[in-house]
Amino acid sequence: MISAVLKLKGTDQKGIVYKITNLLYETGGNIIDAQQHKEELDQQFFMWVKFDCSEMNCTRSVFEEKLTEVSGELGMDFDISYSDKPKRMAIMVSKYDHCLVDLLMRHKYGELPCEIPLIISNHPDLEELAIHHRIPFFYIPVTKATKPEAELKMLELLKSHQIDLVIMARYMQILTPTLLDAFPSAIINVHHGFLPAFKGAKPYHQAYEKGVKIIGATSHYATADLDMGPIIEQETERIDHSHSANDMVRIGRDIEKKVLASAVKAHLEDRVMLYKGRTIIFN
Amino acid sequence: MISAVLKLKGTDQKGIVYKITNLLYETGGNIIDAQQHKEELDQQFFMWVKFDCSEMNCTRSVFEEKLTEVSGELGMDFDISYSDKPKRMAIMVSKYDHCLVDLLMRHKYGELPCEIPLIISNHPDLEELAIHHRIPFFYIPVTKATKPEAELKMLELLKSHQIDLVIMARYMQILTPTLLDAFPSAIINVHHGFLPAFKGAKPYHQAYEKGVKIIGATSHYATADLDMGPIIEQETERIDHSHSANDMVRIGRDIEKKVLASAVKAHLEDRVMLYKGRTIIFN
Amino acid sequence: MISAVLKLKGTDQKGIVYKITNLLYETGGNIIDAQQHKEELDQQFFMWVKFDCSEMNCTRSVFEEKLTEVSGELGMDFDISYSDKPKRMAIMVSKYDHCLVDLLMRHKYGELPCEIPLIISNHPDLEELAIHHRIPFFYIPVTKATKPEAELKMLELLKSHQIDLVIMARYMQILTPTLLDAFPSAIINVHHGFLPAFKGAKPYHQAYEKGVKIIGATSHYATADLDMGPIIEQETERIDHSHSANDMVRIGRDIEKKVLASAVKAHLEDRVMLYKGRTIIFN
Amino acid sequence: MISAVLKLKGTDQKGIVYKITNLLYETGGNIIDAQQHKEELDQQFFMWVKFDCSEMNCTRSVFEEKLTEVSGELGMDFDISYSDKPKRMAIMVSKYDHCLVDLLMRHKYGELPCEIPLIISNHPDLEELAIHHRIPFFYIPVTKATKPEAELKMLELLKSHQIDLVIMARYMQILTPTLLDAFPSAIINVHHGFLPAFKGAKPYHQAYEKGVKIIGATSHYATADLDMGPIIEQETERIDHSHSANDMVRIGRDIEKKVLASAVKAHLEDRVMLYKGRTIIFN
Repeated sequence: MISAVLKLKGTDQKGIVYKITNLLYETGGNIIDAQQHKEELDQQFFMWVKFDCSEMNCTRSVFEEKLTEVSGELGMDFDISYSDKPKRMAIMVSKYDHCLVDLLMRHKYGELPCEIPLIISNHPDLEELAIHHRIPFFYIPVTKATKPEAELKMLELLKSHQIDLVIMARYMQILTPTLLDAFPSAIINVHHGFLPAFKGAKPYHQAYEKGVKIIGATSHYATADLDMGPIIEQETERIDHSHSANDMVRIGRDIEKKVLASAVKAHLEDRVMLYKGRTIIFN
Repeated sequence: MISAVLKLKGTDQKGIVYKITNLLYETGGNIIDAQQHKEELDQQFFMWVKFDCSEMNCTRSVFEEKLTEVSGELGMDFDISYSDKPKRMAIMVSKYDHCLVDLLMRHKYGELPCEIPLIISNHPDLEELAIHHRIPFFYIPVTKATKPEAELKMLELLKSHQIDLVIMARYMQILTPTLLDAFPSAIINVHHGFLPAFKGAKPYHQAYEKGVKIIGATSHYATADLDMGPIIEQETERIDHSHSANDMVRIGRDIEKKVLASAVKAHLEDRVMLYKGRTIIFN
Repeated sequence: MISAVLKLKGTDQKGIVYKITNLLYETGGNIIDAQQHKEELDQQFFMWVKFDCSEMNCTRSVFEEKLTEVSGELGMDFDISYSDKPKRMAIMVSKYDHCLVDLLMRHKYGELPCEIPLIISNHPDLEELAIHHRIPFFYIPVTKATKPEAELKMLELLKSHQIDLVIMARYMQILTPTLLDAFPSAIINVHHGFLPAFKGAKPYHQAYEKGVKIIGATSHYATADLDMGPIIEQETERIDHSHSANDMVRIGRDIEKKVLASAVKAHLEDRVMLYKGRTIIFN
Repeated sequence: MISAVLKLKGTDQKGIVYKITNLLYETGGNIIDAQQHKEELDQQFFMWVKFDCSEMNCTRSVFEEKLTEVSGELGMDFDISYSDKPKRMAIMVSKYDHCLVDLLMRHKYGELPCEIPLIISNHPDLEELAIHHRIPFFYIPVTKATKPEAELKMLELLKSHQIDLVIMARYMQILTPTLLDAFPSAIINVHHGFLPAFKGAKPYHQAYEKGVKIIGATSHYATADLDMGPIIEQETERIDHSHSANDMVRIGRDIEKKVLASAVKAHLEDRVMLYKGRTIIFN
């Protein structure tokens, strides 16, 4: 079975669900799952439909023309993707490999519907791991001075590999607009703190100082505003006075893996929509 | 706003969502939320639609006629309820009041859309609590000998109060078919164990003996098969060797309250569908 | 059995545990549980001992003299309490009763070892509830102008009732030093946000704006620095885009009850020690 | 710093903690952490002490002699281990590698204090992974007919590598007494079900049939009684009607990794004691 995911958003009005499902009915799409969300405060309507498109009575381009027409009448924007065109995902890392290994393992087990054409790192350390997983590894060192040039190299690599999604799997550099602007809402970062509480460096040490009883991690779209992009997933774990900052780092690794994997999965399955700096995630 | 919840089930086929949403569009219903579920193994389709019915262009009976027609064509069964006709819920208790108080508090805070016309107990202890909450309290003692007669009395009370849903809020008697058959899938019980592991009496003592590291509680529809009715909600909590059976009872009270309240809320909001002894719960 | 809880703190050195347990052995105390904690960064040692004191071979005052001597030699401060002298706890409320009811229910079930001699409120609404639970209720209205006078009245009431611990069970006024200074580390507040992220008013609306995926609540000792006192307990709960601010308020009620009850229990069982604005909680 | 962990168990009596800590004081051991547990029903006392043994004033053998004497007087059994003699752990696998990779990663990050001298498998598939991690890999095929002989080979390997602990990281064969008896309470298995509910094969399918709302996994010491050995760790995760058996397998992988890693860590840190088929785990 080949499936498609259709996402629509626009101002709420009667008949949206009917008109969209009508189009699917007429073109031979079979709805597998459909979900909606309404932002009550400003009457915005979000629709998410997954449908079996393997027995449609028209080509994809004809379908998309009709869809443009119907959504145009409804004043809504749409976005569509097909399961036989999996996204191409690049992973950026530095020295820590726990998130990278976790993503590669999940990919191997079929949890993440994507291709992983390359890994980029500002350190050479993880090349052997990439080789073990048979994924091309590009080592691009980054210093303050060389960062602009390095990011241009990265950009070229990402473009030449037709990358759709970039994962910062504990990549320890702040990206500049060179990359950020080239992949709007398509770069996912993991922050080892429960945002918005502990932004910036050493969040676990901040948490220790405050004596919090719960720590967390956050995965979010990277934006120019550091650690402030739309939150995709968060997780927390209990700690107590007996946990050293080192213990928190250890516990943190587990939470980081979990929130990053969950965010990546949601994005790859086209379950994420954005609205006013927040995410709407269907499931 | 007055809303309605429509639930349909039947064999899957193309066009179900379209035909139902078409009907709503034509009759002026505005979809607030629509969810679906398909049982892959036997191609059963379940649809749940919540819609604003305050501006419909026909009466409810006309709408339901049309609905009968459309669902008939689709070979599906349906069920509909309206927010201006809240369910009438009876609560049965014995001596423990933690679940009862929890339900009454949530009701007061508007979490449970229902009326509570009466409380029935086989003990007189909780009458004062009922008075405090201004709910009629009926004390019907139950012994082995008087159980048949007692249940008939209860049945009469429930019928005369037009009760739709009965909650066994730690009511410590096993019901007979007299009541069970009168309220199919409309009696909710809470079991203080993580079913199916610890059925029957003293589940916490069973859990202690086995040395489990997690205990739980389960809310389910009461059926003739003791503690085996369709599970609506479950919760677990970590324990360790330092917890006595008494500690488990204490922790258990919290989980019992939680699973019962959650199950009751799901039922009252018409989010539960049944299939082959399992529940499908939309949210 | 009558038990005592002994808490000691001071600079770490060899022999602390031995010397304290030696004293207990010689005086006939039987250790039920003993726990330690060391702050690695500055070599501070914290010891917590619960012991059966019902068969001691000396009076409490003789024991405490010996304890003063031993701890003096070790350069440590100590604090001792006895299970036959339960703490006296006052509860302050405004209009919301969910935390109050939760505390009263837990007290009734024997979860909270204390006496509750009075409830104080700045609103008359919850008097009937207090009457139902047979606890004296004092209504002391508070306006900006009358706050100093009102707090003096409260202070007098708390003193005349020999109160050891004050619980702000969603008491919606900021306390002044009049009360804060009279009960150092003995006033527990519950904040309906996951501190330190969302301080001050309307934390759930702040959480909604930020699009967080997890909300929380925090119980802490009240200090002059609003919502910044030592954190005793925190809990979190997952939310998603479909939750309105109202839903968060509802979920929040459950978390608030939980963190407040847990903090109160820890304090009443003398399991909390303080160090540099953080809590050390033995269990 | 070199530390030691001392575990004692026996009938409760006054002075146990004092006598043990006295011995440590006299021999120059500095207590880092000490915990106790009493089984109330039959007056058994369990003591766990972690102490800095790097500045003791006697040799380990002299210390252990004194310890034998003191514990003998108290009628208690003891067990001691030293941090400079990490346990030697073998890992047994079949084809699934998620638990193996997880353990190896945690080992690399220093979370698991042990040496891993070998991996044994009844399939050749994971050899490359072992090579990547530079751990000797032994492929020993097992059929019904060859199992006795295969286990003897394994036993020889485990003995010749001085193995202290064997981990069945989704090793899909039932062990016979050949191995079980050679490593009493030193073989840890992970079962992909929330024991004791779903023993044996295909636990997730059992869970699906019952319509449970929570699934789990259990790590336990392997005994002759299949899936009934002392439980070390359990974890649960929420599911709902929309999860297929495949989804449960996916969620299950995460829980399996977690409970196995947690159990292995507890065992390696000598925090586990056994009593009547249950575990007492200090932390």
